[in-house]
Amino acid sequence: MKSSMRPKGAVEAEIVRLLKGAGSFVSGEALSKGIGVSRTAVWKHINALKKSGYNIEALTAKGYRIAPPYPFNDIEVASGITTGFVGRKVFFFERTDSTNRRAFELGLKGEGEGTAVIADAQDKGRGRIGRIWESPGNVNLYTSVILRPLIAPREAHELTFVMAIAVAETVAGFSGKRPTVKWPNDILINGKKAAGILLEMDSEPDRVHFVVGGIGVNLNMRKKDFPPAIREIATSLFEETGVEIDRASFARGLYSSMELWYKIYLDKGFQAVLEAWKGWFSSVGSTVRVTSFDRVLEGVCVGVDKDGALLVRTPSGNVERVISGDVDTTG
Amino acid sequence: MKSSMRPKGAVEAEIVRLLKGAGSFVSGEALSKGIGVSRTAVWKHINALKKSGYNIEALTAKGYRIAPPYPFNDIEVASGITTGFVGRKVFFFERTDSTNRRAFELGLKGEGEGTAVIADAQDKGRGRIGRIWESPGNVNLYTSVILRPLIAPREAHELTFVMAIAVAETVAGFSGKRPTVKWPNDILINGKKAAGILLEMDSEPDRVHFVVGGIGVNLNMRKKDFPPAIREIATSLFEETGVEIDRASFARGLYSSMELWYKIYLDKGFQAVLEAWKGWFSSVGSTVRVTSFDRVLEGVCVGVDKDGALLVRTPSGNVERVISGDVDTTG
Repeated sequence: MKSSMRPKGAVEAEIVRLLKGAGSFVSGEALSKGIGVSRTAVWKHINALKKSGYNIEALTAKGYRIAPPYPFNDIEVASGITTGFVGRKVFFFERTDSTNRRAFELGLKGEGEGTAVIADAQDKGRGRIGRIWESPGNVNLYTSVILRPLIAPREAHELTFVMAIAVAETVAGFSGKRPTVKWPNDILINGKKAAGILLEMDSEPDRVHFVVGGIGVNLNMRKKDFPPAIREIATSLFEETGVEIDRASFARGLYSSMELWYKIYLDKGFQAVLEAWKGWFSSVGSTVRVTSFDRVLEGVCVGVDKDGALLVRTPSGNVERVISGDVDTTG
Repeated sequence: MKSSMRPKGAVEAEIVRLLKGAGSFVSGEALSKGIGVSRTAVWKHINALKKSGYNIEALTAKGYRIAPPYPFNDIEVASGITTGFVGRKVFFFERTDSTNRRAFELGLKGEGEGTAVIADAQDKGRGRIGRIWESPGNVNLYTSVILRPLIAPREAHELTFVMAIAVAETVAGFSGKRPTVKWPNDILINGKKAAGILLEMDSEPDRVHFVVGGIGVNLNMRKKDFPPAIREIATSLFEETGVEIDRASFARGLYSSMELWYKIYLDKGFQAVLEAWKGWFSSVGSTVRVTSFDRVLEGVCVGVDKDGALLVRTPSGNVERVISGDVDTTG
């Protein structure tokens, strides 16, 4: 395979992967053979990697050695990625208004399924219903992925469940804690919000053009850095475990899980996804208050129906079906 | 009212309206008083109008006189517009890829409800399901309007019916012919397609951010200029009536009708719209073939249900409900 045939940055990512795997010096010749590019190309890519913030030592007799800390960028995410399409192409921003906005624009320009946007920091990170998503740099993961399922807009909420499972699974894998999902798509650890999902789409009334799944995960943010208003209801993986999470590794894990569950959704349908989602859902039996744009509903959560709508038994004994809104568990 | 408080182009539009209304010379002083700006400002705006393609004669003793032909631009559309918000702000392009694309981008940037885009010609005019919409310059109307109803994506198709009524009404008013609507939103004259509608939206799964309603109307296009593939199934108002249609007037009429029916939709709900739409719908009793992305259905159209879904009685006697697809009347 010629380097010209690879996606941009793929050779750099491969060099990083080989150097990390070796743990010590690797000769330019070994890299050249291992990757299938000339030694001159290796040298050029090594220089590019240094400019990208990698700490690579070069010794004439021994070759190259990489050492932490590693930067957080598209090369780092690509290095060792195992997915077929999700996150295989990443647009990385040090800072942007919103990864969902960037991904949406890329979607409008025709970017393919699986293309992802990552930002180290967001100036206008958004949550559902126009809310702000706190997005400082250096600590968390903010990423948005373009998907192009052949579905109608009325089915698009099903992808919310796909995303929620992917986030919950990845959080569980990296934290060792079992998160829960608050309907429809907040991910909590010990009852505090650690991650959120914002799905947006471009569609005709009967056909989705593309969906952008935006995910924000509080990875290494410290409690003191949360705004006072959410300090007691939000958390991060670091706060819950005391362990720093490698953001690029987390992104790769998330993309793998997302691809897996998206394929299950396409192959087996929404019911298979919903059954798995229920395994992370913890509100059944709780007292909930649901705020939608036209009403507030209080009652006991009795589950979800086959469409994923929340079922709430009100004090009158009726079971109400909620397809949209914000849920607070009040007891 | 100071001119600085008016939208860009509003004074020019007012001058054009007054000059057209007078039919002869109007003094600079009369314009100055009539509009409430200085005579110097009138003089500057007249010069701007000349640059915009207006044919304005100035005689020292008599003032200003306007004469046809009038250009097709944002000033011409604004001149005499009577709506409250639809089309009150127009982004006009001599040529663009697609008015829906431009309006979508404007929507993402936060442009308000009613803002419209018009292009004299489109390079990538689009119809439903990714089809091409023939969009030569100088002859037709291509416009897209941003709406921000507080609805869920599953309700967005209802706006298709709002748009269809608006287009049908305006076509009827300008052509003197009674058009019919092919489900859900093609407008036909004598059975041939004269206008089409493409609705797109930006949304979360449970909440529409905005809808872009794109409308293409074949006004003055000649039969010989249609591509051979559609020459026998498409038509224009000119071909059906022999009369040239003023595009700016048509746009103003369309915006008025759209605003009216959009308000009815918001105030009285979809059923009121659907009832009016049925008055333009002509397929009941016809044999139809419906092509959707997962099936082809043939049968007799027996109407639409309360959601606007097409009802088709198949040869087996079952009545199938169609929410998406392309309908051909075959008998």
